[in-house]
Amino acid sequence: MFKEAIFHRSKNEFAYAYDEKTLHLRIRTKKNDVDQVHAIHGDSYDFKNKEWQYSLSEMTKSGSDDLFDYWFVAIKPEYRRLRYGFQLRKDNETLIYTEKGFFDHIPTDDTAYFFCFPFMNWIDLFKAPSWVKNTVWYQIFPDRFANGNENNDPEGTVAWGQEEPTTTNFFGGDFEGIINHIDYLVDLGITGIYMCPIFKAYSNHKYDTIDYMEIDPQFGNKETFRKLVETCHNKGIKVMLDAVFNHSGYYFPAFQDVKKSGVNSKYKDWFHIREFPLKADPIPTYDTFGFVESMPKLNTENPQVKDYLLKVGRYWVEEFNIDGWRLDVANEIDHQFWRDFRKEVRSVKEDVYILGEIWHDSMPWLQGDQFDSVMNYPFTNGALRFFAKEDVKATDFVHMIEKVSHMYPKNVNEVMFNLLGSHDTPRVLTIAKEKRDKLKLLFTFQLTFTGTPCIYYGDEIGMTGEQDPGCRKCMEWDKEKQDLDMFKHVQKLLHLRKQYPLLANEGELKVIEANDQTNHVIYTKENEKERILIIINNSDQTLNITLPFDLENKTIKNLWTNSEFAAESTKIDLELKANKFAILFLIK
Amino acid sequence: MFKEAIFHRSKNEFAYAYDEKTLHLRIRTKKNDVDQVHAIHGDSYDFKNKEWQYSLSEMTKSGSDDLFDYWFVAIKPEYRRLRYGFQLRKDNETLIYTEKGFFDHIPTDDTAYFFCFPFMNWIDLFKAPSWVKNTVWYQIFPDRFANGNENNDPEGTVAWGQEEPTTTNFFGGDFEGIINHIDYLVDLGITGIYMCPIFKAYSNHKYDTIDYMEIDPQFGNKETFRKLVETCHNKGIKVMLDAVFNHSGYYFPAFQDVKKSGVNSKYKDWFHIREFPLKADPIPTYDTFGFVESMPKLNTENPQVKDYLLKVGRYWVEEFNIDGWRLDVANEIDHQFWRDFRKEVRSVKEDVYILGEIWHDSMPWLQGDQFDSVMNYPFTNGALRFFAKEDVKATDFVHMIEKVSHMYPKNVNEVMFNLLGSHDTPRVLTIAKEKRDKLKLLFTFQLTFTGTPCIYYGDEIGMTGEQDPGCRKCMEWDKEKQDLDMFKHVQKLLHLRKQYPLLANEGELKVIEANDQTNHVIYTKENEKERILIIINNSDQTLNITLPFDLENKTIKNLWTNSEFAAESTKIDLELKANKFAILFLIK
Repeated sequence: MFKEAIFHRSKNEFAYAYDEKTLHLRIRTKKNDVDQVHAIHGDSYDFKNKEWQYSLSEMTKSGSDDLFDYWFVAIKPEYRRLRYGFQLRKDNETLIYTEKGFFDHIPTDDTAYFFCFPFMNWIDLFKAPSWVKNTVWYQIFPDRFANGNENNDPEGTVAWGQEEPTTTNFFGGDFEGIINHIDYLVDLGITGIYMCPIFKAYSNHKYDTIDYMEIDPQFGNKETFRKLVETCHNKGIKVMLDAVFNHSGYYFPAFQDVKKSGVNSKYKDWFHIREFPLKADPIPTYDTFGFVESMPKLNTENPQVKDYLLKVGRYWVEEFNIDGWRLDVANEIDHQFWRDFRKEVRSVKEDVYILGEIWHDSMPWLQGDQFDSVMNYPFTNGALRFFAKEDVKATDFVHMIEKVSHMYPKNVNEVMFNLLGSHDTPRVLTIAKEKRDKLKLLFTFQLTFTGTPCIYYGDEIGMTGEQDPGCRKCMEWDKEKQDLDMFKHVQKLLHLRKQYPLLANEGELKVIEANDQTNHVIYTKENEKERILIIINNSDQTLNITLPFDLENKTIKNLWTNSEFAAESTKIDLELKANKFAILFLIK
Repeated sequence: MFKEAIFHRSKNEFAYAYDEKTLHLRIRTKKNDVDQVHAIHGDSYDFKNKEWQYSLSEMTKSGSDDLFDYWFVAIKPEYRRLRYGFQLRKDNETLIYTEKGFFDHIPTDDTAYFFCFPFMNWIDLFKAPSWVKNTVWYQIFPDRFANGNENNDPEGTVAWGQEEPTTTNFFGGDFEGIINHIDYLVDLGITGIYMCPIFKAYSNHKYDTIDYMEIDPQFGNKETFRKLVETCHNKGIKVMLDAVFNHSGYYFPAFQDVKKSGVNSKYKDWFHIREFPLKADPIPTYDTFGFVESMPKLNTENPQVKDYLLKVGRYWVEEFNIDGWRLDVANEIDHQFWRDFRKEVRSVKEDVYILGEIWHDSMPWLQGDQFDSVMNYPFTNGALRFFAKEDVKATDFVHMIEKVSHMYPKNVNEVMFNLLGSHDTPRVLTIAKEKRDKLKLLFTFQLTFTGTPCIYYGDEIGMTGEQDPGCRKCMEWDKEKQDLDMFKHVQKLLHLRKQYPLLANEGELKVIEANDQTNHVIYTKENEKERILIIINNSDQTLNITLPFDLENKTIKNLWTNSEFAAESTKIDLELKANKFAILFLIK
């Protein structure tokens, strides 16, 4: 066995408390290099006659990517403490892997050899609000969703959809517009909306905040916002706002004061000024988001700034009963800020959801003390490459997806924010070269994958658009111009997802098959009693396969056609037309 | 190159902020599998013509253990942000390693492939108090160090040293005893004392606290304690106390109340009671340290308990000006508790030191938000096996030591609490089968290794003793019975360590040679200008070697003999008698 490839470490995705009683252990080995793995585990203090008392629990291979196999086991330590190692087998060879290295036999004279999960303190448990894992999000770019009140339109507002979006034009979308279309969202099956920033700002995207305590007048006022939240709540929809705490807008008064008064400004420590007076060329003399002079980075280490921003976080939860915060550029703000942010907003509302925008490995933010979830761009990337860009085949896709599945603890995976696109990316249909069948497959995959999906407004009716500003077109409300077939596709998937919690987060996802010739994948979502097979034919050819299970005497229900058939032989053949899929349900 | 063995991850010992301006990157590769590694790095937002702008910095091989080579580079990101990957070379093969996997060429169309250190927020920086890395600790078991006042002796106190220590006898050691011997410690070269618990408790070891706010009367009172701290401070010695917050003693009034009143006790939530009434057999019906019924685990998640313990943490710093807390069984208490503990004690005294007792991988506690250091048992283990137990040879020893050096960030290594023994282990001289030469080598290694050494009282004068209670004998104050030669050895090493900061933590440690035949090791501590060679002959044979550097025209100073010699040829031969060592200094 290849020792150098074997990896485990505690207190991250390889060993974590899943719930108050259960520890999950994972280990990584070189692909196809190990036949069987057992966890060796016992209480840290359980000795008899000076011999440590341990049990062996067989681990299951939970997935594989291009280089590694991953193994998994769930353990319930009676006294919430665990010392553990791994016994790896290949043919006649046995290896014992511990924190102190490899052994031939399990050492029992001391527990110090072993990995340690010292104590499952409940307060440290990663615990997203319970409602999150059943939520289906819908992202709204407020200026572009619906104009419900022309009286609050900013000067120069363009008539709805009458121009291409630019980086500077306005279309008058507002809260009343959203309120007017809540039933549309309910009809689709949405249970949460995430709105890009709504606070007073200069631009059409509002990521350049002027006043974090005020609604931008183009969207309405605090009363219309309150009405929006209440309407959503009455319809079973959660509301998440976007917080831009990494940087302020250019016209944020504190920054304007520093621009004006320089070193004498009482706000000079609100930012990171490297040199006075402020200059923007060639590179700003103060820290910014990227190198954008109009986005000065806020000094979140300054207690005044921190107090102010925490008050903001608290205010909109406390006063307007919002359900979640999406945190822009969350990775560039200090961890201490986020720990206190969590305490602050959770003290007002116990089940408020905290979602960070992080594009890379986010484990340091997902330890239970900071965020409940991050935007799952690695998921996006895998899905788009296989179904939309078509530059990877089934096997590579599956490897990417297995990496995603093994990047974080399972309780994190269940609430990962799975998006196909956003206001920051080209429209997914555009990336898919406007192939509507591919978009359907994308939705099928997204809405049956582990985590919480988010639909970017308009994708469900087949809107197109290139990278910003193209992806920020006005929502198409003319039914004639909507792709109603796509809408129904999404609606049906969401309906199934609700009817069969296995499709959402009650089932364990397992990849069964990936074939580069036919470019199809099969994966299952299952629990101890039930199994759902999802078969996706991502090719322009008809697929003929035999189902990879012994199904004799099973009744199989095709959830898409709502037809049932009884399997009469052990092997069942299935035909799937080009770019079609099947979702089959059976009792195990 | 063996892809599966290559490992890097951000925000731990592989990528961390070393100081306010410097990021350290490390990568691990299969041993002897890679010839050259470069870090590929650039600002996260630095694009020109849609191409990411990066630099290449060559990494140095910082060490090797049995399976892996480790590579290191320090980088100063101008804007405190870094995207990075690695370019690995072997013969004509080149591999690019990123967070998204391996590539043939450096992809520059996006930074999302790369590892990310998003922003070096200073508040998150790991930062032990600056005095720590120059401190040499001395551990005192208060009942056994010195009896300075017989009036406070507990009933039945045994005359000093007149009996073997048992788990229950008392010898009357106290604060006045310590005060009387401060000059002894100064003479030895000690700059910090760490005392086992001093609070009111039942046993002789005082790990079973009855009152965290009171001094145990057998040691003195608050006035004598204040005098002890002041005396130490006047002599340049820091004072660290031992906090047992994981569990209380059996006679802690809150626990007694729960024992008495059961479910009606107002303290019932101060502990983790699984079943009322409390029973101890066969296993306590409440959580305990180990399965010890007299050590009930405190519920540190209960805000009342937390407030109480944080007040304790604060009180002894605020009222008595102590300099550090050593935290017993620190790994079994929740992370949230420790984060708040740090804030609490640091708010009173900015440079108070926080040391956790953790025996395993402690990275989750050493991220800058919890502890400054942990007890370095992996160091202990390596040192004892080579020099004392003699069950590993030079190569295995070096592998263990290289693992220790690569377990944590360098700024953590500099303050790791390096002990050879404690009140919980047999005396080091006893483990070394009473071979005094081996103990000298152990001290030589300990006092020239990276980190902050701690000497367990009496080891410096050659005291012996088996596992507790044997290792807790009364300190030998009769000069006739002290090993004064050992004392002088330690004293001289400490003097050199002070005179040559390179020997402490100003120099980078590098292992140069390890030879199983001769059982010798050579390592250097060096900076850009100076180099110290430490050569240890851990065998019963005379060692004849040629120094592994070109030393022509260098003047070499033997720091132990204080003699200088000029190297007249490129190769210098050295003879070292059995179990001897040399410490050579030169200007590079």
